[in-house]
Amino acid sequence: MQGLWVTELQTPSLALSCRVVKTLHRERTAYQDLAVVETEAFGRMLLLDDVIQTTVMDEFVYHEMISHVPLNTHPHPREVLVIGGGDGGAIREVIKHTEVERAVLVEIDARVVANAKEYLPEISCGLEDARVEIRFEDGIEHVRWVRDQYDVIIVDSTDPVGPAAGLFSREFYQNVYHALKDDGLFVAQTESPFFNAAFIRRVQRDIAGIFPVTRLYLATVPTYPGGLWTFSLGSKKYDPLKVDLQAIPSLPTRYYSPEVHKAAFALPPFVQEILRPGEEEEIF
Amino acid sequence: MQGLWVTELQTPSLALSCRVVKTLHRERTAYQDLAVVETEAFGRMLLLDDVIQTTVMDEFVYHEMISHVPLNTHPHPREVLVIGGGDGGAIREVIKHTEVERAVLVEIDARVVANAKEYLPEISCGLEDARVEIRFEDGIEHVRWVRDQYDVIIVDSTDPVGPAAGLFSREFYQNVYHALKDDGLFVAQTESPFFNAAFIRRVQRDIAGIFPVTRLYLATVPTYPGGLWTFSLGSKKYDPLKVDLQAIPSLPTRYYSPEVHKAAFALPPFVQEILRPGEEEEIF
Repeated sequence: MQGLWVTELQTPSLALSCRVVKTLHRERTAYQDLAVVETEAFGRMLLLDDVIQTTVMDEFVYHEMISHVPLNTHPHPREVLVIGGGDGGAIREVIKHTEVERAVLVEIDARVVANAKEYLPEISCGLEDARVEIRFEDGIEHVRWVRDQYDVIIVDSTDPVGPAAGLFSREFYQNVYHALKDDGLFVAQTESPFFNAAFIRRVQRDIAGIFPVTRLYLATVPTYPGGLWTFSLGSKKYDPLKVDLQAIPSLPTRYYSPEVHKAAFALPPFVQEILRPGEEEEIF
Repeated sequence: MQGLWVTELQTPSLALSCRVVKTLHRERTAYQDLAVVETEAFGRMLLLDDVIQTTVMDEFVYHEMISHVPLNTHPHPREVLVIGGGDGGAIREVIKHTEVERAVLVEIDARVVANAKEYLPEISCGLEDARVEIRFEDGIEHVRWVRDQYDVIIVDSTDPVGPAAGLFSREFYQNVYHALKDDGLFVAQTESPFFNAAFIRRVQRDIAGIFPVTRLYLATVPTYPGGLWTFSLGSKKYDPLKVDLQAIPSLPTRYYSPEVHKAAFALPPFVQEILRPGEEEEIF
């Protein structure tokens, strides 16, 4: 490995390195270190505190799967909240749904949005849409004071350490419950089944203690540790497994499709094992 | 990154590094450099020419998916050939099928088998089974001289460079066709849809020129580049999409299940795109 590379320590004993074409931007925001680098393997890449958040090459997997699964599970998603997701990728997918009347992005760090607009236009392009409202505030606080407001809430956060830790607490899920209308549902990215099994078990248990419907689904994001990634969904009424796949509107997507929607819930036995009641062990 | 790490250059611009607990063995065989290292993230790991082949932590994904999909597609898999696969992982899965009467392993490099027996007993444990016959010869030559012999052939090869390149040629697939009985089928690992799209397209086109049924399916192997991995299947008669999932015998597996069998063929649109006729571009 000669020359300029960017390396993420994905776990204390696992590192992913990408050859860098150019370092486009680096700054220390009020909340975190932010970098945008152009890599050979994945194109432009956003890093926060040295952790890969998104790349122009593989972001479609994550953003489509965190958005279209919940939005196609809800029959009429009109008001949608995205917490985190300052790169705009989830919002770009959300507004593909013509029924969405209002998409609120609550991002704590205004510099993430500013840099996404400047360096990641393919990802942030939806942020200018008239239906989108951007609030630079803490998502934890936002859901504390909102009641019966949203049809769908998407928690597009960083890893559950530092400022994002509160986005994975039982209290937060309780507030998400109350911020949703009485047939609302939410989804959160919930890390790797290979490296964060105990964390996933805890989150799923907490969601199941609050929401009548709790599900886990999978997608493969090349730049995330281990590739295989989980999303946890809590719903007051609608079950993503009972969606009429024939009725899903056709949208321009590269990873999501009605067939992939269904397949994402076909959990391998080792992932089902995580969901069985067992010993607790905190990883994060 | 301090201390001892093993790094695979997965592409010229992408590297995966694992912290090493202990280097267990290194040698230069007649065919390749071979190393067995114990890593913190994935446990013991086999490398050939510095490319990760398998690890005790994630091998179950690859070995189950390359074996049970074809064996459960064929209604009576009695004679099975594994080409490559000297670690024994595919054989271990193959002999879980009680109908299998004979499982032939054709591995060019006897040292791979010897080292797998010594350092990877969890993976190689099936090689001692009475139904297993190990031949140290070139799989390319083996299928050249065999006719109407096998129900299922599994091509568990290294990447399509160097000695394994011939395992991805049209001529080889033609010989595989003739080595199969008249209702036989075969499967091969065929690299990453993110990094090897042109290669996959060429292989699928070649198989479709020979076999009436050609399919592509997916699984996520954390230690392979990009995680998402493809398998290509060519069949004279049976279609893996038409398998009666209810009739699949229950086997002890951690990734494969009847539901996962079906879900593995739900290709995201960007993977379907690879299979459409298009421009040719050789990656390997």
